[in-house]
Amino acid sequence: MKAGVIGMGAMGSGMARNLHKAGLLAAVWNRTPERAQEIAGELEVQAADSPAALAQACDVIITCVSRDEDVLAVMDAMAPGLAAGKTVVDTSTIAVNTAKQAAAKLATAGVEFLDAPVSGGKEGAQNGQLVFMVGGDPDVFARLEPAFDAMGKSATHMGEIGSGQATKAVNQIMAAGINQAVTEALAFGQASGLDMDKVIQVVSGGAAGNWFLQMRGPTMVKGTFEPGFKLGLHHKDLTICRQMLENMNVALPIVEMTLKHYQRLMDAGHGDEDISALYRDKQAMFTNGNKRSL
Amino acid sequence: MKAGVIGMGAMGSGMARNLHKAGLLAAVWNRTPERAQEIAGELEVQAADSPAALAQACDVIITCVSRDEDVLAVMDAMAPGLAAGKTVVDTSTIAVNTAKQAAAKLATAGVEFLDAPVSGGKEGAQNGQLVFMVGGDPDVFARLEPAFDAMGKSATHMGEIGSGQATKAVNQIMAAGINQAVTEALAFGQASGLDMDKVIQVVSGGAAGNWFLQMRGPTMVKGTFEPGFKLGLHHKDLTICRQMLENMNVALPIVEMTLKHYQRLMDAGHGDEDISALYRDKQAMFTNGNKRSL
Repeated sequence: MKAGVIGMGAMGSGMARNLHKAGLLAAVWNRTPERAQEIAGELEVQAADSPAALAQACDVIITCVSRDEDVLAVMDAMAPGLAAGKTVVDTSTIAVNTAKQAAAKLATAGVEFLDAPVSGGKEGAQNGQLVFMVGGDPDVFARLEPAFDAMGKSATHMGEIGSGQATKAVNQIMAAGINQAVTEALAFGQASGLDMDKVIQVVSGGAAGNWFLQMRGPTMVKGTFEPGFKLGLHHKDLTICRQMLENMNVALPIVEMTLKHYQRLMDAGHGDEDISALYRDKQAMFTNGNKRSL
Repeated sequence: MKAGVIGMGAMGSGMARNLHKAGLLAAVWNRTPERAQEIAGELEVQAADSPAALAQACDVIITCVSRDEDVLAVMDAMAPGLAAGKTVVDTSTIAVNTAKQAAAKLATAGVEFLDAPVSGGKEGAQNGQLVFMVGGDPDVFARLEPAFDAMGKSATHMGEIGSGQATKAVNQIMAAGINQAVTEALAFGQASGLDMDKVIQVVSGGAAGNWFLQMRGPTMVKGTFEPGFKLGLHHKDLTICRQMLENMNVALPIVEMTLKHYQRLMDAGHGDEDISALYRDKQAMFTNGNKRSL
């Protein structure tokens, strides 16, 4: 297997490093070439001149970019270098329909496609501890096992193309609700004058116990919001969820409410903080002492 | 220590049995006398004729009733049997201010008071695995250790009178938000046609992982809602939270939204189901295919 990675952000560069450790990396590409050259130099692999050149040099192409339109643009840009038998694995978080569009573009050239969004953040990408949620042909998924093993702690085949993205959407909606739950409850506790270390310990041991409370509870009550997972990125993911939901003719309460609260925080300059900065919004409800709408 | 328990519901009778195992139980009382006589006969202890008679026969009185007004009524009913040096431990879930009122009533007679609400449900009460959140004098709390040990897996002293109830309110608000998070995300996943066992497994392993997802996720996606924790009781607890919040001049989004959704489910006859029956409400949003307000 000769793998290439497109997109040298925090996530993509981590994946490239771990593929390199497993002896699988042949080339990298990035929109800003300096960044690709830096990583290529460090890992002693090729910095491709274009997505098409990278696609020509590799049999497995892993894309890790930000937005739905970027994913589709990269597929088009790779086209001259693609050929039957190659596989594209998109690890970006995008809409189910966009994943299907990308797969359809590639299928005409006999190129296989997997949608494989991840959870685990920067740390997971760097340490090879990502969790992959994968949609697509099960045989292709099985063939890619060495690459997933190199980059993640687990990869689960969820079903047909798009089911990886649908699973990621479930994860992002749940994360939004848990953020609402933990920030609202702890802001009430702090406004009530409780010893918050004790509260976090007691509540963690019961039926409301959760990962986010244990990891972000102690920092939010101290007013520190180092990412973690940037609020602006979660907002982007929830916008994708809303788009998928619009296709189902549904508006979901947690999704709508969280988009509204996040927008308020982004407008106030907190988009680059951790999602737990939602605590600021809840605290303001107590500090301002007035009733606010949802 | 001679302990008595007032209120022989699922919680109170479990506590009585575990106090009995530890050799601490002297008497029980219940509003419906037949229930008290049944348990007293089983445990070979006294079924007191009145709260006052129980208070006279015991030096530690544990109350486990449903509503704020019931707690205050029981304090008044015990008064003729109370005397300086006795201690009342109220394990009901009530408002912080009601706990302070109960303590003030008793203080005039030299009687100590602890507010000690619990989490852990019926199973916790039966197995002696309750989690106690306790407010009141730390010396009194220390003296009661044998009783808490008999009934629970942990008891944490949170601060002054009322701080046990404030901590319980934090727990109940967080539980409401987590219920919103898990039901909304899984209903989306099921409507998207995903394999829900796989989804629950994958999402549990990441940053959205939580106890409720692991315990109630598999049953909610199958449409079974055996309590657990009854939706109608959580609604009652959230009403108490709303009352405490009104005193702080605050309306909280998760609290307001969940009270509204629970009321809708109670009106449709689902109040005696587990709180995870909120899944019905989320599913209806997909089934009916229309946009609903929050």
